[in-house]
Amino acid sequence: MSLEENPDVGVSHGVPQELVEKVLGHADANLNASLDRLFQFLRIPSISCDASYAPQCRQAASWIADELSGIGFAASVRSTIGNPIVVAHNKEANGPHVLFYGHYDVQPVEPLEAWDSDPFEPSLKEQPDGETHIVARGASDDKGQLLTFIEACRSWKAVTGHLPINVSMFFEGEEESGSPSMETFLDEAGEELTADVMLLCDTYLWRDKVPAITIMFRGILEEEIEISCASRDLHSGAYGNAARNPIQVLAELIASLRGANGEVTIDGFYDNIQELDEETREAILKLDFDTDAFLRNAGLSQSAGDTAYSVLEQIWTRPSCEINGIAGGHYGDGFKTIIPSTALAKISFRLVSGQCPERMQSKFRDHIRARTPADCKVKFTSFGGSSASVISSRSEYLARARAALKQEWNCEPVLIGSGGSIPVVGVVKSRLGLDSLPIGFARSDNRHHSPNEKYDQSSFHKGIRSWIRILAELSRSTTGQPSLLDGNITGTDQA
Amino acid sequence: MSLEENPDVGVSHGVPQELVEKVLGHADANLNASLDRLFQFLRIPSISCDASYAPQCRQAASWIADELSGIGFAASVRSTIGNPIVVAHNKEANGPHVLFYGHYDVQPVEPLEAWDSDPFEPSLKEQPDGETHIVARGASDDKGQLLTFIEACRSWKAVTGHLPINVSMFFEGEEESGSPSMETFLDEAGEELTADVMLLCDTYLWRDKVPAITIMFRGILEEEIEISCASRDLHSGAYGNAARNPIQVLAELIASLRGANGEVTIDGFYDNIQELDEETREAILKLDFDTDAFLRNAGLSQSAGDTAYSVLEQIWTRPSCEINGIAGGHYGDGFKTIIPSTALAKISFRLVSGQCPERMQSKFRDHIRARTPADCKVKFTSFGGSSASVISSRSEYLARARAALKQEWNCEPVLIGSGGSIPVVGVVKSRLGLDSLPIGFARSDNRHHSPNEKYDQSSFHKGIRSWIRILAELSRSTTGQPSLLDGNITGTDQA
Repeated sequence: MSLEENPDVGVSHGVPQELVEKVLGHADANLNASLDRLFQFLRIPSISCDASYAPQCRQAASWIADELSGIGFAASVRSTIGNPIVVAHNKEANGPHVLFYGHYDVQPVEPLEAWDSDPFEPSLKEQPDGETHIVARGASDDKGQLLTFIEACRSWKAVTGHLPINVSMFFEGEEESGSPSMETFLDEAGEELTADVMLLCDTYLWRDKVPAITIMFRGILEEEIEISCASRDLHSGAYGNAARNPIQVLAELIASLRGANGEVTIDGFYDNIQELDEETREAILKLDFDTDAFLRNAGLSQSAGDTAYSVLEQIWTRPSCEINGIAGGHYGDGFKTIIPSTALAKISFRLVSGQCPERMQSKFRDHIRARTPADCKVKFTSFGGSSASVISSRSEYLARARAALKQEWNCEPVLIGSGGSIPVVGVVKSRLGLDSLPIGFARSDNRHHSPNEKYDQSSFHKGIRSWIRILAELSRSTTGQPSLLDGNITGTDQA
Repeated sequence: MSLEENPDVGVSHGVPQELVEKVLGHADANLNASLDRLFQFLRIPSISCDASYAPQCRQAASWIADELSGIGFAASVRSTIGNPIVVAHNKEANGPHVLFYGHYDVQPVEPLEAWDSDPFEPSLKEQPDGETHIVARGASDDKGQLLTFIEACRSWKAVTGHLPINVSMFFEGEEESGSPSMETFLDEAGEELTADVMLLCDTYLWRDKVPAITIMFRGILEEEIEISCASRDLHSGAYGNAARNPIQVLAELIASLRGANGEVTIDGFYDNIQELDEETREAILKLDFDTDAFLRNAGLSQSAGDTAYSVLEQIWTRPSCEINGIAGGHYGDGFKTIIPSTALAKISFRLVSGQCPERMQSKFRDHIRARTPADCKVKFTSFGGSSASVISSRSEYLARARAALKQEWNCEPVLIGSGGSIPVVGVVKSRLGLDSLPIGFARSDNRHHSPNEKYDQSSFHKGIRSWIRILAELSRSTTGQPSLLDGNITGTDQA
């Protein structure tokens, strides 16, 4: 897999460039109308983690479905046990079929007093640097971002009456609450959402003027272990030395998981890992990533990871083992001289390509069991796991998206990794078999989940333009059928 | 120091045995009146951990002061910032001067529904084995126990008009709440409470029919360490591998504190320890202590301590290092994939003779600092400490008390250690320079701090008789002045 390669993208079919320019021009001319629609959407306080906002979540779902119906999609609001999911289809073309994902729910707004303006009354705030901020809860995460795709579709429809490829969309209303209804929904929807590739935009630009496509996400394995020794808390005077202390046991187990260079010491942990090819590795090393600033931003001055790898490699391409939580005995105010009966830790592993969560779970548990002393019981609880996802550098969809972004941004888009994962990417891969192309236009200072969340107007505008170009480029794909729009300007400007 | 040695106790002076028998007879004849007084005392709900019971605590203090005044003590209730402390003196004799300690406060009673009768309406419950249980909160801890000493004094006064030695007493009302007023009180009381030895009875029999004197307590050092790495909680996807994880660091530090055989690995930890002499060690090994039952009672089957020592040695005579609490990151329900910014542990060391808490603190902190990786900060918080206390086997007071107990129980009293410490023992040693003789008559099944707390009527009765004999034996001490009662029967039975 190469981050640099820009395959020769065929232009033998697909929509002609003049038509693309017309659609772009329409989007430019109608930006204010697009902003008006975004403002309508942002005014709906669709907070998913507070059940009292369930009606507003349903209102946001209906708003999207209405907008999509208005531009010719077959759109509907599907009930779940939680907030509804919007599904929409426009499958008139013969080209490839993309599935677009976004979420209409937003984070809560507390502390309200930290906002400079009403979080649900969006405002445009001009900046000294000439940028204009769209300030509201959800402006960037994810209402503004998802609307870039819908507005791109609108412009195609307005100018040509059609979309250049087949497009399905689904929007959930529980992303900020752990997506509890998603898996069941996908299991039931199944074939209806089958497509060639998933597009989503819940991601960031690499730099303010440099777009990015995330081509690899780490997988994850989440485990809890509880160590039990005595049948009750003991007095540390009465039993100290003689009674096995579960916190001591747990600490020794945790210490046994990593070596001096940060490497994970579980037997076979690194087996079967598909190492990056030299080209990809070099591309990562060549990225203008400011490691010092990255660490400084977290109050750190040096990496704790394996020194054989750069920090970007450590977080994107190497598996990790992190203790996410630990508790045992008395940890509140004051002091209680007890030997507790139990102690627990929550431990997660970030996995890379080649590591199977189920195999890793059994290796981890074997490691723990082999080191748990007599008289101790260990209880494992799984919080789930998912494999790493990597899109092949040979994917034509990836090449087409890169080409489209390069046209719009006048620079080579950066192919990046992500140390974390967007849950829907893994679920859609496992349920529907789809690879994903996450292409977002947020900036790192957009204050997601924080007061004064904003989206740059240029992100919104260039986001719409980027998707217009990506839809056109994808229509030129050799893997799909010729588009309805191939070589013909059949649409009329309906706006 | 020998646990076996029974020095030849001189009988050249002190009260004659016939007089002791008269006093014992008085106590026997008046047991019901003693029980009536105990019931009055038990009816006062002097719960110290709940400030709304402060008036009842004051009532309990006044009750004791009135009782002591009634038998000729100069008794008063002294105010503190918390519950008052009762101080009483009877210093008419020329013999040795003992200071008796007890506490009039009790534990709360929740869960109330687990009690078979009202915790503050004491009742006598006859048992199939012929024993009678006094059931009430505080029956054993410590109202019933402390009253054994007061009732012994009452009998002496009733029969002879005097006590055979000088007696001072103090009773606190915050023992169940950490004794926050005690140190200030002792600092201020100072000389007023100076005596030759402290007696207390907040301890247990060795077996139902075998009394015990606790001759050694372990000291303690209580430390909290907090490890800080990043300046905020980090996303374990975004930073996993690169960011130092404070839970991992803390686990490795804790693991570094103990070796494979349970030994503490802090440099110099065992320096200067005064090892037991061979005799004492053999006496401990000969005690009829059921190690298996001790461990089984805690749900354990084997000791985690240094196998070079018996379990009794491990808990009485060897220093320990126990992790009493630990917390970091997200340990509640669910899973949060964070790398927390901090993690903390509460760690206590039980110390033995020769180990200085201040020196141990600096060795511990040096150990931690030397192993804390770059980019981590460690913050230490001290929760205090105290040295081990050991009464010399050559103490004549100890020998006298043993002799008295042997007369009453018809067996050799057992000299034992305690893995914990009774805080007042250390404080009185450091503030007033007094050694302590803890002699209590509770049984291990007395349900201290639990529902249906009870005191065996035989404990109460034989406790009174034991103290009558101990006061007589102490009057024969060569270290004190001849008692007023020496060789003369001067009192009359006043009951």
